[in-house]
Amino acid sequence: MIELRIIGRVASSLRDPGAAPKQGEEGSPPAELVFDPSVADALGDVRVGDKLLLLTWLDRADRNTLRVHPRDDLTQPLRGVFSTRSADRPNPIGVHRVIVEAQPGPLRFQVRNLEAIDGTPIVDVKTTLEGIVE
Amino acid sequence: MIELRIIGRVASSLRDPGAAPKQGEEGSPPAELVFDPSVADALGDVRVGDKLLLLTWLDRADRNTLRVHPRDDLTQPLRGVFSTRSADRPNPIGVHRVIVEAQPGPLRFQVRNLEAIDGTPIVDVKTTLEGIVE
Repeated sequence: MIELRIIGRVASSLRDPGAAPKQGEEGSPPAELVFDPSVADALGDVRVGDKLLLLTWLDRADRNTLRVHPRDDLTQPLRGVFSTRSADRPNPIGVHRVIVEAQPGPLRFQVRNLEAIDGTPIVDVKTTLEGIVE
Repeated sequence: MIELRIIGRVASSLRDPGAAPKQGEEGSPPAELVFDPSVADALGDVRVGDKLLLLTWLDRADRNTLRVHPRDDLTQPLRGVFSTRSADRPNPIGVHRVIVEAQPGPLRFQVRNLEAIDGTPIVDVKTTLEGIVE
């Protein structure tokens, strides 16, 4: 048994999963990452301009879906979800490449290119591999 | 509370976390992904040559670590783990870019560039964004 801990939440004007962009660069509005005080030390080196890999828990996804029509296009044949980026999958972990645009507070980071909807739980943050330090 | 389901395991000659490469392209041996039969339908479109984003659960990691010396180099100053790729972090989800080299069986895929150690739980598989269909 593996338990994930929610370390923050997405704050966004996106509220309807059906209306959200399929990918972050497809017209996402600015969003904020709002973290729990318990992870403040882990955030201490995040700076404006950083490119980050953000991992979320897509809590509206269907965990029993194993095949989907890519991009919800019913004219496309069904495809195994492990060959897609569908949110619906056994463990719906969202992987997002975002750029930090501002830091309105010690635990708040404004980012762009995030298509997750408002309230989505945050579970991890890493450097992207271009800017890798570990 | 979020519960992750283990959908498979890594089979690798890498057994010692301390001796494993820091990143997949830093000399990883060939490894196999061995999946649970319950996710066979989700794997149905994975082909030899595919570039996949593999998500694992780094079960030897320390979940209480919030700052690390990058790449275990004690001459480097401590850095918040969210600005690193350290395995030690509140939710130790590994993100690996791998290439499928062979499919020895319906639920087995040989891959390269995987630095995870033998037995590491697999929690998700996605297409990389180069090969995106959803």
